Amino acid sequence: MAITQKQTESNTAGTPDFTRGDARISELLTHMQEISALGALSALAAWDQNTIMPEGAGEVRGTQMAVMQGIIHERWTKPQLGSLISQLEEVVQNQSFTDADRGLVREAARTYKQYTKLPRELVEEMARTEAASFEAWRRARSKNDFAAFAPHLTRTIALQREVADRFGYEQTRYDALLDLYEPDLTVSKVDPLFASVREVSSTLLKRIQESGNRVDTASLHGNFSADKQVELCREILQRMGYDFSRGAIAQSPHPFTTGLGSPFDVRVTVRTNEQFIQQSLMAAIHEGGHALYEQGSAHTLVHTPVAGGASMGMHESQSRLWENAIGRSEAFWRGQFDLVRKVFPAQYGNVDPATFARALNHVEPSLIRVEADEVTYNLHIIIRYELEKMMVNEEVAVESLPRLWNEKYQEYLGITPESDSDGIMQDVHWTSGFGYFPSYTLGNLNSAQILATLRTALPNFDEALAQGETAHILNWLQSHMYTVGAIYRPDDLMQRLTGSTLDASHFNHYLTSKFAQIYALS
Amino acid sequence: MAITQKQTESNTAGTPDFTRGDARISELLTHMQEISALGALSALAAWDQNTIMPEGAGEVRGTQMAVMQGIIHERWTKPQLGSLISQLEEVVQNQSFTDADRGLVREAARTYKQYTKLPRELVEEMARTEAASFEAWRRARSKNDFAAFAPHLTRTIALQREVADRFGYEQTRYDALLDLYEPDLTVSKVDPLFASVREVSSTLLKRIQESGNRVDTASLHGNFSADKQVELCREILQRMGYDFSRGAIAQSPHPFTTGLGSPFDVRVTVRTNEQFIQQSLMAAIHEGGHALYEQGSAHTLVHTPVAGGASMGMHESQSRLWENAIGRSEAFWRGQFDLVRKVFPAQYGNVDPATFARALNHVEPSLIRVEADEVTYNLHIIIRYELEKMMVNEEVAVESLPRLWNEKYQEYLGITPESDSDGIMQDVHWTSGFGYFPSYTLGNLNSAQILATLRTALPNFDEALAQGETAHILNWLQSHMYTVGAIYRPDDLMQRLTGSTLDASHFNHYLTSKFAQIYALS
Repeated sequence: MAITQKQTESNTAGTPDFTRGDARISELLTHMQEISALGALSALAAWDQNTIMPEGAGEVRGTQMAVMQGIIHERWTKPQLGSLISQLEEVVQNQSFTDADRGLVREAARTYKQYTKLPRELVEEMARTEAASFEAWRRARSKNDFAAFAPHLTRTIALQREVADRFGYEQTRYDALLDLYEPDLTVSKVDPLFASVREVSSTLLKRIQESGNRVDTASLHGNFSADKQVELCREILQRMGYDFSRGAIAQSPHPFTTGLGSPFDVRVTVRTNEQFIQQSLMAAIHEGGHALYEQGSAHTLVHTPVAGGASMGMHESQSRLWENAIGRSEAFWRGQFDLVRKVFPAQYGNVDPATFARALNHVEPSLIRVEADEVTYNLHIIIRYELEKMMVNEEVAVESLPRLWNEKYQEYLGITPESDSDGIMQDVHWTSGFGYFPSYTLGNLNSAQILATLRTALPNFDEALAQGETAHILNWLQSHMYTVGAIYRPDDLMQRLTGSTLDASHFNHYLTSKFAQIYALS
Repeated sequence: MAITQKQTESNTAGTPDFTRGDARISELLTHMQEISALGALSALAAWDQNTIMPEGAGEVRGTQMAVMQGIIHERWTKPQLGSLISQLEEVVQNQSFTDADRGLVREAARTYKQYTKLPRELVEEMARTEAASFEAWRRARSKNDFAAFAPHLTRTIALQREVADRFGYEQTRYDALLDLYEPDLTVSKVDPLFASVREVSSTLLKRIQESGNRVDTASLHGNFSADKQVELCREILQRMGYDFSRGAIAQSPHPFTTGLGSPFDVRVTVRTNEQFIQQSLMAAIHEGGHALYEQGSAHTLVHTPVAGGASMGMHESQSRLWENAIGRSEAFWRGQFDLVRKVFPAQYGNVDPATFARALNHVEPSLIRVEADEVTYNLHIIIRYELEKMMVNEEVAVESLPRLWNEKYQEYLGITPESDSDGIMQDVHWTSGFGYFPSYTLGNLNSAQILATLRTALPNFDEALAQGETAHILNWLQSHMYTVGAIYRPDDLMQRLTGSTLDASHFNHYLTSKFAQIYALS
């Protein structure tokens, strides 16, 4: 690992920037600024929809989003933009250009090609369908009425297939959708990675269950007012290095992070459960990981497609690194427990941080993905991945999806949902499209590989955490990874960061050794 | 007044709608929907900026707003839109078209002509200047540093003059800006109205001061938590008939109302002062009046320029009607005092609603417009109106404005601000432009005239209020005024509503008789 460390250190760069003196780069930046500004306002509309927008505004907001998507489409498909990109593609590898230029041209070309393959009417129709599907899902889920949601899901499947067919693919139709979130990712690459993760997760789960050993979670349950939880989340985020002068926190039914002009406006949401503190706290640290990544982009990259994360799999690597490798470690809670005790003195005056951290690592097959432990989490993802492949690549009847979901939960996790609300309608994702879920597991794999590098580069990793420090980790990630945004392709970035491309062995090793210790497995 | 009542009743119309079967109307509606959707998202960006946006996002938000203004400009100046409007202007007076069609074409033509006179670069520059000026004003005001704000004000004056010159005018340059908020309004119309209001206000103020009689305001002061105040505002708004399923309430430094797709998404903000309950409560009722008007537009008008208020003067008539004629009446508080006591039992258990209502009508010259009583309020406006005329029509030196402001306050109100923060930098308005302030006084004049009609149409006006009812008032306004949005020109609407065009005598009579009673003037 010493080689890796040397390599990553040699890759610590100064602030990346574009060759603004070049007239073509400068013209491309003007196009990108306009498109990014529109994208930021679309993201604002989505933030609003999830945090404060009144229910009765669903339909007008759908129209507004569709209009905005139409204009973004119009901007991305301007012929003069296409020819500018082509000109730049021919010269940008020359030494006179920077890595930032190359990343800018690569990402602009990628999105330009995607948009030119989709007619504007289709893009607008997708925005309208998504808004209607979201409202229908919200209502159907609260009434456990899959039949009311099914027509919307059917429409989304049809639209996603049309999108995939228009993008084109070499092996399977689903590959075209995977590529949207993770450039060049295919089923043929995901299948073996996921097979290995499934095998390791299932074996480990079985060992834990057979050991009969238990983790006491009592310290996570009690009465915690929502306001106080948000206050605690805010303080933890501040300690992590999240900058509130360029951010905000709100509550929403599904926690998320959004960049409205990264790195200058990056916001997070949490969901609170007044009986169970884990939900808001882990959501805050997870979203905090995403947010640190977005806030970490060099300021020079603002309003370009290379501000923010390199891919969704790289993005999730940061949320999961902060949430699990850091936020579920005993060292972290030793360093932060003064905050927990300050906000909830009655509940935590007599609790030891080790007990609290241990409780956060309780392993048990459960129905809800976002609440799953690290051992079972990827099994939730693999189920969704398999169902998405069926919906996109095969002719599955929508009515049979609740049954298929339940059968897979029984097979992978040994439990069956009692309602479709906790089953097939659990996640918001299928109100918009397919291809995102694998990013979560890729994120877990990436995060373990980056963690191994971090531990080598920072021999005091745990000691500093236990003293309430997180800056040593953030500084390393900031200077090696966050500052370059999406300038490098995800594979290249992993290579630069860790010395090798993605390999599931780091994750499998991390998971097995961590939980063998927690559960005292022999 | 019986004639007025008959006339207004005969004008109660069904739901207005467009002739959607006509291909040209339908095409115009398509253009308008796109433009209105973009306008709604711009309004969302402004709402966000005033409620939750982090400080560090000021500059990126400025860019985003400028991009959006540029696109809205591009949409408004499409030549095919111009020729469509011209075609429609020639035929829309025919009997086969509806009043809604005529209003739509009139408003579209009006805005089309305005935009075609302004180059896109100017519109974008104005958006950027406004964003920068807003940030500078916020900082300069907190430090009482007019010199830091002055260059921004200088820039705004230059831009507003350019806008006025491009729009054109017959008599004075300022007329072109007045017309933006109140079609066809001119200095030659405003001057005599304001002279009469000034005369009546000053005379009344002198009589009150000379009477030596006092109003006890102790019941408005105390300790009121911000959260509880917002809760009370929420309940009062609900009782007024504001529909929260199409609205939301938040806090902001300056209270405002915004339509993000009226009538389906209309939001209000309040400002709270924990020592003085009047501020949030009166803001809520004032903004509630604006919001009821916006929420009252016929659903058929959504995403067109005739959804919402007929003009800013008509809009302010509704905020001031609800705030003053209703929300500062003893009858209203008799009907609502159970709510006040429920939220603040310790403070109001032993207070009588009559004492509370009387306190809300305390008259005293003060420095802050938004906190001014009804007698002095218009004097604050007239000062601003006179300064705006100077800035736009004459060659006033920006450095002399603080002195001019203070001299006018001494002359009109007998007091002088101790700081520029409470003087020349008091209002947010001059970070964006000129011409709006007169709408407030026009609103007061309109509201008194509409009130006279309401009192004739609803003989039980006060009795029902005292029983906690407000629906009788809302229903009348809804069916006679709100539902038609901006279909009729403001003058025509006043004629339809009250049987005559605007006349200051209603206001002068209302003001003098109300305060003669409260202050027991002989």
